[in-house]
Amino acid sequence: MLAKNDLLAQEIREWLAARDILAFNLTSSPGAGKTTLLERTIRELGSARPISVIEGDQETLLDAERIKATGCSVVQVNTGAGCHLDAEMMRRALDTLDPPSGSLLFVENVGNLVCPALFDLGERSKVVVISVTEGSDKPLKYPHMFAAAGLVIINKTDLLPYVDFDLEACSRHARSVNPDVQIVPVSAVSGEGVIDWYTWIDAQ
Amino acid sequence: MLAKNDLLAQEIREWLAARDILAFNLTSSPGAGKTTLLERTIRELGSARPISVIEGDQETLLDAERIKATGCSVVQVNTGAGCHLDAEMMRRALDTLDPPSGSLLFVENVGNLVCPALFDLGERSKVVVISVTEGSDKPLKYPHMFAAAGLVIINKTDLLPYVDFDLEACSRHARSVNPDVQIVPVSAVSGEGVIDWYTWIDAQ
Repeated sequence: MLAKNDLLAQEIREWLAARDILAFNLTSSPGAGKTTLLERTIRELGSARPISVIEGDQETLLDAERIKATGCSVVQVNTGAGCHLDAEMMRRALDTLDPPSGSLLFVENVGNLVCPALFDLGERSKVVVISVTEGSDKPLKYPHMFAAAGLVIINKTDLLPYVDFDLEACSRHARSVNPDVQIVPVSAVSGEGVIDWYTWIDAQ
Repeated sequence: MLAKNDLLAQEIREWLAARDILAFNLTSSPGAGKTTLLERTIRELGSARPISVIEGDQETLLDAERIKATGCSVVQVNTGAGCHLDAEMMRRALDTLDPPSGSLLFVENVGNLVCPALFDLGERSKVVVISVTEGSDKPLKYPHMFAAAGLVIINKTDLLPYVDFDLEACSRHARSVNPDVQIVPVSAVSGEGVIDWYTWIDAQ
């Protein structure tokens, strides 16, 4: 099943490259703030380059509706009992979305720090979003996801005064499972640090 | 696979009942505060009744070490790439733990709001812990887990002043997928509301 997924993901990767579409696969625990980060990113980057979004959730159109309200093209994929997006879902969503050449494509995966690590969607890079409310030890406890990521975004830094979270320790733990990973602390709510996220996107 | 799991889970349920052991399967997103809630619960209930804990994580002994520091019997199960505990893991953990008759047994599942919903471990009830930092819409987006639960604990109420979370809406959403579910808001850090959690345990 994984081999079949990887084969299709490779086709998708080539299809995206041929159209100069830069795709990122955003993964996280439920409620880490992926949608809020995307809303801000679309508002602040959308005038420079067209952006499309694929939203993954077990149920509801809630996130797609939030993204649509920003004026961005979006497709919602509901996985039902499923715990992750796979390459076949990605292919079907791309058929519907038909993103323009030269665009940015964000895939918001089902909120799950485990299973999406195994499934290549043909993206340029996986981006793991972790919130400071989740605790500094998460990279050690969910190493596969952090090992698969090109970037770790540590979100909700506006809540740092109210929680027991060690930014330095969390970064050290992330690097212990993925020595080359880049780490960007942000607050998607206040906007603190998001410029470093945009700089990382530009560098890709 | 699920049928085989359910068969073994039923055997475990009978084994636990014969020994008057009351078992709860705690599930949540990563970092929702299950371990902190268990630490407090063991401190505050452990003198009345023996308590044992089975800790599930992809990797590390971190949570088992936290539980062991409370003086409680604990076994850590590492699932590697796996995304949930299953009945066979539960059976092996029980062999090692050998919980005494008349005791309370808490199983802390892998942090994942999706996959553990499908796997019966022979527990009396699943308890879903959601944190107020995750957003009020989670019961709608992860309905299978909330439908499988006997109790929803809404944790981290100490952070309510700093986040956009609607306790009433979250409770309504949980009841829309599970009309009879009980809902208990708590702060495992401050202790607010935990008496309602203990009352629920007693009622089981």
